[in-house]
Amino acid sequence: MLSAVGIVSEYNPFHNGHLYQLQRAKQITGADIVVAVMSGNWLQRGEPAIYDKWERTRAAINNGVDIVIELPFFSAVQPSHIFSTGAVRLITAMNCRWLAFGAENPNIDYLKLIKNQPERDASFRQFDRPYASIFQDYLKKKTGIQLNQPNDILAFGYSNANFNLGSPLNLVPIQRIGSDHNQDKLSPSGLIASASAIRNAIHSDLVSEVNKFVPRSTFSMIQGQRPITWNDFWPLLRFELVEAPISQLHQIYQMTEGIEYRLKRCAIKADTFKTFLHLVKTKRYTYTRIQRLCTYVLLHATEAQMLNQPNYLRLLGFSKNGQVYLNQIKNKLKLPLITKVNEEVVKNWLQMDFGAGMLFQMINNKSQDYYRHPLIIGN
Amino acid sequence: MLSAVGIVSEYNPFHNGHLYQLQRAKQITGADIVVAVMSGNWLQRGEPAIYDKWERTRAAINNGVDIVIELPFFSAVQPSHIFSTGAVRLITAMNCRWLAFGAENPNIDYLKLIKNQPERDASFRQFDRPYASIFQDYLKKKTGIQLNQPNDILAFGYSNANFNLGSPLNLVPIQRIGSDHNQDKLSPSGLIASASAIRNAIHSDLVSEVNKFVPRSTFSMIQGQRPITWNDFWPLLRFELVEAPISQLHQIYQMTEGIEYRLKRCAIKADTFKTFLHLVKTKRYTYTRIQRLCTYVLLHATEAQMLNQPNYLRLLGFSKNGQVYLNQIKNKLKLPLITKVNEEVVKNWLQMDFGAGMLFQMINNKSQDYYRHPLIIGN
Repeated sequence: MLSAVGIVSEYNPFHNGHLYQLQRAKQITGADIVVAVMSGNWLQRGEPAIYDKWERTRAAINNGVDIVIELPFFSAVQPSHIFSTGAVRLITAMNCRWLAFGAENPNIDYLKLIKNQPERDASFRQFDRPYASIFQDYLKKKTGIQLNQPNDILAFGYSNANFNLGSPLNLVPIQRIGSDHNQDKLSPSGLIASASAIRNAIHSDLVSEVNKFVPRSTFSMIQGQRPITWNDFWPLLRFELVEAPISQLHQIYQMTEGIEYRLKRCAIKADTFKTFLHLVKTKRYTYTRIQRLCTYVLLHATEAQMLNQPNYLRLLGFSKNGQVYLNQIKNKLKLPLITKVNEEVVKNWLQMDFGAGMLFQMINNKSQDYYRHPLIIGN
Repeated sequence: MLSAVGIVSEYNPFHNGHLYQLQRAKQITGADIVVAVMSGNWLQRGEPAIYDKWERTRAAINNGVDIVIELPFFSAVQPSHIFSTGAVRLITAMNCRWLAFGAENPNIDYLKLIKNQPERDASFRQFDRPYASIFQDYLKKKTGIQLNQPNDILAFGYSNANFNLGSPLNLVPIQRIGSDHNQDKLSPSGLIASASAIRNAIHSDLVSEVNKFVPRSTFSMIQGQRPITWNDFWPLLRFELVEAPISQLHQIYQMTEGIEYRLKRCAIKADTFKTFLHLVKTKRYTYTRIQRLCTYVLLHATEAQMLNQPNYLRLLGFSKNGQVYLNQIKNKLKLPLITKVNEEVVKNWLQMDFGAGMLFQMINNKSQDYYRHPLIIGN
């Protein structure tokens, strides 16, 4: 019987830090198989993936991941507590024994945080600050623990979700090394850089500088693909914000406190996405929150669609070992494993992923769902 | 006291045939002033204007029109009976004494047609044919008159609308000369060509061939402006059809008989507007009807918005003589004359024209309404 460790990722794009994390996860746990639950074409911070989910799946499997499962849009493009809950459910549904994740401070007492967190209700907010920072200050006051690094926040999310599900997974926090997640530029020393520094270099036409920070297969992908950015979707976003009536915009998930009026007014004025973001920004709304909201606008996403728990396993690709593991678990799966996409499957399961994929397809002309089979790589 | 003759037009673009019609109208009526009620940025057949409303206003005034009033979107992008009703109301509201219009057969007995037309109710239809052709066959059977030429159909519309309003206008049908309205190509002989033949030449990069068929100012416009086509809006249309839920598409004006499902399915498949139109086309739906529907989708237009009667006069431009006439009538106007556009004016009057203009602005980067004043031309 093969055992599996789960990893939650965006692989945007897959780099040496991801490779290190994956190897450490196998080393620490002794797992035979790595299952990655990966965001599809849109990411947690409300941005399009730099390359589509198929390219990123290929890079992941080429570098040691055995199975890639798509994290559904309604979990992937969400604040960390919803994101991590969806991911933990899928890792669990794939019968993984462990969940490994990077953390800036892997020795944090997650249980202490879990037990001291406030209720997430409407009374817990202030109108001049983002929710997350209020939440973190509350925890700091109660526990003395400062939770403000992006991977630590996700680590807490995974721990909390696992705890709420009755702790089906053994958690394996792995110390992040060699890069600051928020570091914007590639550093001359070392072989590990943040994904955002790598993306910035790619967007600035400095592709050759990326070489030493990514595995070879990622570098070929970068050389062969046009990188996608929000600028590609700006004409569509602007169109929708300008032309849709306020009453329709109001129905979008997270369109609260009348921000639809602000978005519309700024879309009429702005002629680039960057200008638009600057016009919309306030103390209360982080760039991430605004970008997520814009992504929901593109997908016409309603609360009913977005407050779903993952109820399917969309298989994007697997290695030969992954195939053995899939055969081992397939009769025990509690969620349907989706390998072929047709109108019926879209209607019943993949509605949002299909819509998110069509957005990509309208830009890069590559089918994202219809007629696509899971990638089978290696031997 | 100056007297005015009204003309209804699209001037898409202004050509020698338009010039001839205008001069004949003045000659026949002895009017001092020509008032044109002109479609804005979107046209009756559900197409974007080849140049924006300001360029077309300039060309019209440069060639003898004294005043240009915008035909509101909710009248302009409509079948002929609604189009002509809106236009006649505005010509009347501008205190014109005459309405001149081109006709293939100016001696048709309009009154006979008016008195013999069927009720426009839901029972009067067949599912395998367009409404207009059933309507025309009915008239033919009752009166012996064949009404199937595009200008004759509009002429009947003007006559009918004028009759319904108590005949405030003297109607002046003018024999069309020198071109077949539906002729696609420029003919080597003559100086008059159809607007569609002229547009085709422009879109085929044969600008120089257009020279002899248009006044000089039109030719400069053509040389200086990028022509707009449906292809410019296809990414936006496709996005909306793919991403909007069926329930939202269903709310669009004229989205009947479940055609929203067909539109969505075809938009997912097609990657050009041309392919899309071919996929959608059926016996029941003419290309014009489909294109109008697509325009409504872009504008998110509902029935409540589209079944309005013109209740304002949007002034796009005037000549010196036009100014004298405006001073003469301004205290007698029964509709507000709109010369300056701000948020309040958009909200109360111009909502749809603003939306139609923003579509253009998102393509050609020229403000269509905010900060625009009527053009004042000539001396």
